[in-house]
Amino acid sequence: MKTLHVDLAERSYPIYIGSDLFQKMDLRKYITGSQVMVVSNATVAPLYLEQVLAQLSGFNTESVILPDGEKYKTLEVLNQIFTALLQGRCDRKVTLIALGGGVIGDMAGFAAACYQRGVPFIQIPTTLLSQVDSSVGGKTGVNHALGKNMIGAFYQPQCVLINITTLNTLADRELSAGLAEVIKYGLIRDAEFFSWLEVNMADLLARDPHALSYVIERSCQCKAEIVACDETEQGIRAILNLGHTFGHAIETGMGYGTWLHGEAVGAGMVMAVELSYRMTWLTQQERDRSIALIAAAGLPVKGPVNMSPAQYMDLMAVDKKVEAGRIKLILLKGLGNAVISDAFDSELVKDVISTCQAL
Amino acid sequence: MKTLHVDLAERSYPIYIGSDLFQKMDLRKYITGSQVMVVSNATVAPLYLEQVLAQLSGFNTESVILPDGEKYKTLEVLNQIFTALLQGRCDRKVTLIALGGGVIGDMAGFAAACYQRGVPFIQIPTTLLSQVDSSVGGKTGVNHALGKNMIGAFYQPQCVLINITTLNTLADRELSAGLAEVIKYGLIRDAEFFSWLEVNMADLLARDPHALSYVIERSCQCKAEIVACDETEQGIRAILNLGHTFGHAIETGMGYGTWLHGEAVGAGMVMAVELSYRMTWLTQQERDRSIALIAAAGLPVKGPVNMSPAQYMDLMAVDKKVEAGRIKLILLKGLGNAVISDAFDSELVKDVISTCQAL
Repeated sequence: MKTLHVDLAERSYPIYIGSDLFQKMDLRKYITGSQVMVVSNATVAPLYLEQVLAQLSGFNTESVILPDGEKYKTLEVLNQIFTALLQGRCDRKVTLIALGGGVIGDMAGFAAACYQRGVPFIQIPTTLLSQVDSSVGGKTGVNHALGKNMIGAFYQPQCVLINITTLNTLADRELSAGLAEVIKYGLIRDAEFFSWLEVNMADLLARDPHALSYVIERSCQCKAEIVACDETEQGIRAILNLGHTFGHAIETGMGYGTWLHGEAVGAGMVMAVELSYRMTWLTQQERDRSIALIAAAGLPVKGPVNMSPAQYMDLMAVDKKVEAGRIKLILLKGLGNAVISDAFDSELVKDVISTCQAL
Repeated sequence: MKTLHVDLAERSYPIYIGSDLFQKMDLRKYITGSQVMVVSNATVAPLYLEQVLAQLSGFNTESVILPDGEKYKTLEVLNQIFTALLQGRCDRKVTLIALGGGVIGDMAGFAAACYQRGVPFIQIPTTLLSQVDSSVGGKTGVNHALGKNMIGAFYQPQCVLINITTLNTLADRELSAGLAEVIKYGLIRDAEFFSWLEVNMADLLARDPHALSYVIERSCQCKAEIVACDETEQGIRAILNLGHTFGHAIETGMGYGTWLHGEAVGAGMVMAVELSYRMTWLTQQERDRSIALIAAAGLPVKGPVNMSPAQYMDLMAVDKKVEAGRIKLILLKGLGNAVISDAFDSELVKDVISTCQAL
């Protein structure tokens, strides 16, 4: 088992990464009260809920099982967690445990941030995407019909438990979606890791446990370093959003859950790469290698064609990075080097979107 | 105009108290971006929205008008604020202004805490209750069908503007409700103020501006001192909840909005006083004076009779002060001295409730 530390002063916490951790890791030292509420979904709970509960003997444990999917990441479904907590007479010392992918982590974390104005929580991410991205960094929240992740809180867990064994039951499409965020770390900050991924993509798709363990650790390390510099995204943390402004527009425009988050980020990164290339910040070879790696991970490189470039721009206008009406995007100046920029006009962005709809 | 300071390190903020402040006070220095969203309700907006907007020339201002009343303090109505913000293309620099009573303040504050994971807000409380209580201290949130204020955040405003002139349009019943929280400060911390209130209650009910200004200032000062010691209610801050555990049970049990919050707190404080007397922590004279002052403010002293003591206990079991199944209450050991206690058995509490239903 590997241990990483996210360094956030009194909100610091450890990330444990390894195989068979539901059997090997004792979570009890992270639980201060007597009550535990496990939040999971209808896909993950039948597979792993019993194993997690078996670890928690001696606590008063309850669970709430939500429907599975991004389209359920709403205030309305969030309220089901509050109802379960109140029906279970959970007090301010209850610990919430998020057992599932990014949607469960975001919702359970936000519920923990808000229930009685804040109770502790633990993340047990069970998808590659949530293991390398959404379980680290304290971003919690829900979607609004008009914009993704628009309602939420920065709220840090007591610890994160990444049991790599859960990836054995992950659908291929979900595995690829997780690889989008892995590739992102190479593109924004770690050119060497990018090259490693080019060589080892086949092993990852074959779910080689050593390869998976390595990318999870390296991704979490990268994210933890960025988050430690800028917990509430006043600056540098925004580079973690490479491809996300385009991607969120795809997710919102197509209806939440139609494209998986990682798929939308994959196609969105292609757009960011293409725009960086048009601005002469990437060479053609860098552009081609980036698109080839995204494709090799089994991700879509082509944006959905039933959204017009104007519709993209409209949806991108509610992005959290917008300031005084200007859209800001994360772009690349060379592989491994991200910048935050608004030095482009909207016609160029629309043209890039069109190009990427025709790849 | 008087200025008080709530001292919370980098979250410190001023409270301005005075007459005609919509004309005299310039809020603009507290607004950092170009966008402002005023959150108000259907009762207050027709009276004061135009005056507030007139102050804000030069900003891109919008408003969202919610229905008036405690029963609308829900996640669902909260979502109307998010919809207005997104439709208005409000970015992370938008400032929310709460213009209304406690419900508007709690909801606008919580919306500010959650929108894009946190944007600035300003409180303009227009009822006596919100001026002396809910606008100070950073408690924001909404109700759940199973428990009051169960979903929320600690989130501090940029400043609080208390325009005493708004009390001229307040309904008598709302004025009395506000006096419940005023009396509370005397009971929990300031015996001298309690005596002052006994002498001056008639002036307050006649809306003498000097008397009102004095009680608002003294109440805010008292609350600000307590909150500065214990922002997130790990200990001493809980004494601000005198009468509130009983009161929240009344509000939830009777249906939100049937009893005003201050009315429920009034009857709840009578129960807390009666229980303190039964425990020999108050003399009969102290008990009688307390009940007489609550009655003199035009508040109900008798709890609703169509809730059984068992129903009270059931609703009180989801109070935020409950720990490991034990109900904790704020009780008095002499006038002006509050304690947090669970040194009573539930039969005594039920008997006290019965007594107070028959006063």
